This record gives sequence, structure tokens and C-alpha cells, in this order.
Amino acid sequence: MGYQEFTIEGRNAVIEAFRSGKTIDKLYVLDGCQDGPIMTIKREAKKANVLLKFVTKERLDQMSETGKHQGVIAVAAAYEYAEVDDILQAAKDKGEPPFIILLDNIEDPHNLGAIIRTANLAGAHGVIIPKNRAVGLTATVARTSAGALNYTPVAKVTNLTKTIEDLKKQGLWFVCADMGGTTMYDLNLTGPIGLVIGNEGEGVSRLVKESCDMIASIPMKGNIDSLNASVAAGVLAYEIVRQRLR
Amino acid sequence: MGYQEFTIEGRNAVIEAFRSGKTIDKLYVLDGCQDGPIMTIKREAKKANVLLKFVTKERLDQMSETGKHQGVIAVAAAYEYAEVDDILQAAKDKGEPPFIILLDNIEDPHNLGAIIRTANLAGAHGVIIPKNRAVGLTATVARTSAGALNYTPVAKVTNLTKTIEDLKKQGLWFVCADMGGTTMYDLNLTGPIGLVIGNEGEGVSRLVKESCDMIASIPMKGNIDSLNASVAAGVLAYEIVRQRLR
Repeated sequence: MGYQEFTIEGRNAVIEAFRSGKTIDKLYVLDGCQDGPIMTIKREAKKANVLLKFVTKERLDQMSETGKHQGVIAVAAAYEYAEVDDILQAAKDKGEPPFIILLDNIEDPHNLGAIIRTANLAGAHGVIIPKNRAVGLTATVARTSAGALNYTPVAKVTNLTKTIEDLKKQGLWFVCADMGGTTMYDLNLTGPIGLVIGNEGEGVSRLVKESCDMIASIPMKGNIDSLNASVAAGVLAYEIVRQRLR
Repeated sequence: MGYQEFTIEGRNAVIEAFRSGKTIDKLYVLDGCQDGPIMTIKREAKKANVLLKFVTKERLDQMSETGKHQGVIAVAAAYEYAEVDDILQAAKDKGEPPFIILLDNIEDPHNLGAIIRTANLAGAHGVIIPKNRAVGLTATVARTSAGALNYTPVAKVTNLTKTIEDLKKQGLWFVCADMGGTTMYDLNLTGPIGLVIGNEGEGVSRLVKESCDMIASIPMKGNIDSLNASVAAGVLAYEIVRQRLR
């Protein structure tokens, strides 16, 4: 079950990986390289919203396991993403109302890992992350999750708002964390629920917020603006746990 | 009020800094350097439990702001540690029962920063950390605290158990986070309270645990062992907030 990253090296192998729909976490390309196959790879990377880094030949040589990188190395996750239906099925199998944590563009892998860890311990049935912009299941995420990534399914979706609408049809209620909402203690969070946590800097995006049924606020007494995203996710997830235990 | 690190360079300056009781976060010494003054500095560093790193001349030259490091550069916090009495006074000034978060050897600066951030927003009056082994107020801590370090006092004590005993005499109750305790919802956490969070790997140490009045457990449903330390601190701090709000 262990998680590991592996590299895909060489032009054809990398193009093939993109075309087969393999999830690429990062792509390293030799700086200055502009020939046809490399341009194709860059286009595929852009389409798939993959983080692209231009590096020196020395760096590529160092990363290469085969010694034949031809100026391009992709890093892919050995971890397989789940489907949203797998998460719903996990809830069904346990005979529990679904409890899903949705992340609206978490960027810091330490936060993502800590949230997957929290999801596991708070009894959430899975985590949903968007394909674009946000961090994926990198080795850092796996390490920070302290093993939870092996148990808690993580699904990657193209459009978070659409996923929320689909899940609403299946009976889920959505609550997002934001300032200016209702104090979390005053909301009913006991039913089938999706908890939406926003981006570290910008919070929950407007469209996602508009599709939520409730806005939950964590009471704040201090001088600064907001909790760390993984702490906020933990505090809200455990308010759901508390209400469900009563 | 901003936090910044500054370097102290040269043998006499560094010895003087140690002797004046200045809080040194890190000490860089030229690898292989063994003369008298350097040996004195190493002894002082050991006494003060300062992290000591041996580096090349190139590295020192690069770090140096004065160009006259003489083989030794100390990094000190411009941030001033508070006294435990300052924290109690802050509670008194607000007319609130004291709420202090004590950290039993948190090692990760990201965790320390996130916990200071949580302390600020949960309305804790201060944070107490031990002098030995644990991470101090480094630049990473300041950054991760998102500014909270400018508002929430942090005191550094020699012996956490002794500090707990002293604070008990002032009417505080102590609760530590550990497995196998009472579910946090079933404890009364409304009075003057010290919340003790343990080390990332080993939890709360035996002596500290024995001096606590209550052991609080966060309900865990999952497959893995424990929450991230800063998430656990957030969940427990907000259980205190919830109980105090009722």
C-alpha cells in the first residue's frame, strides 16, 4: 500500500504518459530546449495543468535513474486517485452518512497532508481536490499524511462546483469555512455533509461559496485574520465529529 | 513590532552575546576551527542548548553581513521572549480566566508557528515553551505564525514541570492531550487552564503528564495513530473556546 513517486524519462515515454491520462505531478525540462517533441510535451503539460520547471542538464542528470532523459523527466505519483463514487461507497459500506472534505485549491503540500491525516482520524470518508492549480499527491503530501493516504481515498475533479452540484443531488449538504458566516456551533452539521476548505491566502472562491448551503465561521478572538488552513480544517471537522457523537 | 533575525559576527561579539543571556537560535562555526576562543564559544553554546552547525568558509562568507566573521556567526532573534508573569498579567488585564498553551518539546517550526497563530485566534493569553531541545522563535516560526508572534507572548522556561507546579499554585488547572484519556467533550475546561501539547513523535513526556490534572483525548475513528501536533492543538484549543462560550 506504500506510496512512492517514480520518474518517467525520455520524450516518447513522457508524451505517452500524458496521453494515457497518467497523473503527472511535476515536469522537468532542459532549459532552452525548443524542438518539436519538447514543444508537444509542453503543450500536454499545459493542458493537464502540470507544474513545469526548466532546469540545467546537471540537474536532470542527477535526477535521472536511467541516464537517458533526453532533456525531459516527469515525476508521477504511484498513488492512484479514487473516484468520487468510491468515497460515497465507503460511507455506504460503513452505514454512515457521507462526510467528505473538499479542498478549494490548497497549495501547500504540508497542509494537504495534514488535512488527509485529519480526514482519516475524524472519520471522513474521503477528500476531494481540484485538478487545477492546487497541489496534488506528492511525496511530501504522502509523508505529512503520516500514512493516512493509504487509507483515506482522495479524488481529483475537474470542476469543484460541478462536483458539489452532483453530490447535492445525492443528498449531501455543503458547508464552507469563511469569515462572516454562522458560528459553527449554531449550525446543524449532523447529516450527509461536504466540508469545503478554501485556499491558504484567498479562502473559498466565490462560485464554490455560492454553491454551499451554509457558511461556518470559527470564532476568532485575536489580532490576526485566519487560522492555518489545516488547523481550520481540523477544528471544523471535529465540530462535525462532536455533533455526530451527541 | 515586526520580527526579524539578525546575525552576531566575530568571536568577541558572540561570546559577549552568550554571556549577556541573549537568546541565540543557531550558531555557525568554521569546520575544523579549534582554537581557544572557538572552544569557549562551543562550551557556551552547549550550556545554552544552542543548535551548533559546522560549515565551510564559503558558507560563512556568504552569510556574513560585516565580512568579519572570524569563523563564527550566531543567529539571534530580535523577538523578545516574554515572562510567564506577563502572560498571567495579559489575562488579568482582559478580566478573563488565564488560558495558556504549553508545548512539551515541539520540534517542527511550522507546528510552533501554527500553534502561536491558533493561540492568538482562540484567545489564549500566551504560549510557554521549554528551553531545551524544542525549537525556538526562529524566522520560520515567525512567518508561519502569520503575524501572531507580534501579539501573543511566548515565554521560554527551563523546566516545564516546575512551571506547571508554580502555575497550579496560582489556580490554573492543567490538561494534556494524550490517547487513553477522557474524551475532551466530557471534561470541564472552562476555568483557568493550561493546555499541554506533546512532542510530534513521542507525545507528552511522563513527568509532565503526571503533573497534569486531566488527560484529554480527541476522538479518533481512523486507521492511523495521531493528528498533526498543530491540528491537535487547534482542535483542543477550540474545545476550550466552545466550552467557555456556552
